[in-house]
Amino acid sequence: MSRQPAVPFTPRLSSSFPARPLNVAVLGASGAVGQELLLLLEERNFPVAELKLLASARSAGSTQQWNGRTITLEEVNAAAFEGVDLVLASAGGSVSRQWRDAITAAGAVMVDNSSAFRMEEGVPLVVPEVNPDAALAHNGVIANPNCTTILLTLALAPLAARRPMRRVVVSTYQSASGAGARAMEELKTLSQTVLDGGTPQGEVLPYSLAFNLFLHNSPLQANSYCEEEMKMVNETRKIMDLPDLRFTATCVRVPVLRAHSEAVNIEFEQPFPVEEARSLLSAAPGVELIEDPATNRFPMPTDVTGRDPVAVGRIRQDISDPNALELWLCGDQIRKGAALNAVQLAELLLPS
Amino acid sequence: MSRQPAVPFTPRLSSSFPARPLNVAVLGASGAVGQELLLLLEERNFPVAELKLLASARSAGSTQQWNGRTITLEEVNAAAFEGVDLVLASAGGSVSRQWRDAITAAGAVMVDNSSAFRMEEGVPLVVPEVNPDAALAHNGVIANPNCTTILLTLALAPLAARRPMRRVVVSTYQSASGAGARAMEELKTLSQTVLDGGTPQGEVLPYSLAFNLFLHNSPLQANSYCEEEMKMVNETRKIMDLPDLRFTATCVRVPVLRAHSEAVNIEFEQPFPVEEARSLLSAAPGVELIEDPATNRFPMPTDVTGRDPVAVGRIRQDISDPNALELWLCGDQIRKGAALNAVQLAELLLPS
Repeated sequence: MSRQPAVPFTPRLSSSFPARPLNVAVLGASGAVGQELLLLLEERNFPVAELKLLASARSAGSTQQWNGRTITLEEVNAAAFEGVDLVLASAGGSVSRQWRDAITAAGAVMVDNSSAFRMEEGVPLVVPEVNPDAALAHNGVIANPNCTTILLTLALAPLAARRPMRRVVVSTYQSASGAGARAMEELKTLSQTVLDGGTPQGEVLPYSLAFNLFLHNSPLQANSYCEEEMKMVNETRKIMDLPDLRFTATCVRVPVLRAHSEAVNIEFEQPFPVEEARSLLSAAPGVELIEDPATNRFPMPTDVTGRDPVAVGRIRQDISDPNALELWLCGDQIRKGAALNAVQLAELLLPS
Repeated sequence: MSRQPAVPFTPRLSSSFPARPLNVAVLGASGAVGQELLLLLEERNFPVAELKLLASARSAGSTQQWNGRTITLEEVNAAAFEGVDLVLASAGGSVSRQWRDAITAAGAVMVDNSSAFRMEEGVPLVVPEVNPDAALAHNGVIANPNCTTILLTLALAPLAARRPMRRVVVSTYQSASGAGARAMEELKTLSQTVLDGGTPQGEVLPYSLAFNLFLHNSPLQANSYCEEEMKMVNETRKIMDLPDLRFTATCVRVPVLRAHSEAVNIEFEQPFPVEEARSLLSAAPGVELIEDPATNRFPMPTDVTGRDPVAVGRIRQDISDPNALELWLCGDQIRKGAALNAVQLAELLLPS
């Protein structure tokens, strides 16, 4: 086992990181998002001095290769955050809630992938291409938005910046990865069961996704929207700073492995020429246009799997409303929908 | 080979069938819909005297079991329709166009599953639960609507009958069966390829549907809607006799075998209480409610596969518009979306 010596702890006095390689801790490294976080820290040459992988007692002691180093998972406890500059947390809301105070008390910045603090006043909820300035106003915690929301706001923001948006109606096509690595495995296993003529039985997800689909299984709220749908509504409003945006969503899980798709109907206060929308989106950061009407070629999950950009296409005038546009998008749920956005958030705090 | 003797030909003088067992011909019996038609004629005790299976020269001569009979496929030609009362056509638009005149000249009623005549003036486009009376006004041809449209109108009609509908926004989740039996086989084969670590290559469909999805691959129209989407728009208006209904759709193929799903946002001219909508839909013919908010149990493709009703659920007040409702539905594409509706159309013409 090779470990870098810990960098001596210096309390941060600004919202940005100090100008030196950082001590980084990842909470939940073994999950689908955690694994992608490790990959991205390496790929993007994030300035890492020490990398700590923090896990439950059960997982502590196992090892993980990273950037030529062999790192042993440590059990998470308050002392583990001493000297850490950045904590990338993706072990779920309850773990994030449990360790937030210890993390901020240690002076680390927590970039949290859970929904625990997203709607909390004073916690920036940030998509770097959309509201980067919000990140610097943090008090130790920056929240990484819901995956479907991140992908959607990349397409909505450039349009909303041009003309006031009145109402958004979204239907999602969400991959198994949104429920974690085990759900992805289950989709593969149960698909094999169906192909072999058997009867699939969902365990990680409540029903089998194999050649099947179902409305998102997060708990229903009093208004009959599921939690996932209300995350989209509330988080989109917060990120885009449009607290009164009229927004409705239907969230659906589909038998796709790791990329989400969304059918988006956007009503504006006035007509929005399609060519202007296309031009804005083709220049928008984090967005890639895939549009070839002649060959009927528009974004597909397989176009974005393992890739950074959100693919947008089929931008068209809504024939039912002169003020509305329709568009379609796909994005890698684990990457831009989670891990990439989290690492980009941390990058916003690097000294320039 | 056992064949029933042909019933002597008597020209029909009314739009209804004569009060005797009918001579029925099926055009396109070997396809996914054709096979389901045969099943339904048997299951529903449709009054069949002779059953002719008409096919291209290539398929003629092969045999098919039906209701205890062995039937030899005959090559389709004009003479084949002599003495036939009912032709169930599901061999595609060009075949339907080719034989329409011969069929009607022979005095048979053509129930056509293709899109060839759906929007033609004087051709009734009928969903028996929605506009049964239209069927009797035929001039020899009754058109069976597009699958997504049939499923949708079953849910829209009971609501539109109560309060004026202003605008509908639909996103579909369409199964492989919509592209025929070969597309279903391809989905299975390519899913196995992916599970075995290979690279799937679509041939029946333009791209692989295995753990993937894409916008419906029907040709794009000048307005940037694909043909499938415009079928939904135009056919829904015709069936519901709402020529000015504002309607937009995004049609998507998903890796499901034979049931379509739809996320439907409906704006009315005034508020529509959810409980009233639920009560109307629970009493609507052809509709089954699947709604258990406590266990998050709503319609799934596997609920309706091989079954007659359209399953509707998750009826909720749209939080973005006081006059709008959201709902979700699933229906078997081959059955109610095609073959069952066609047989029900023919049943409308049986003497009571």
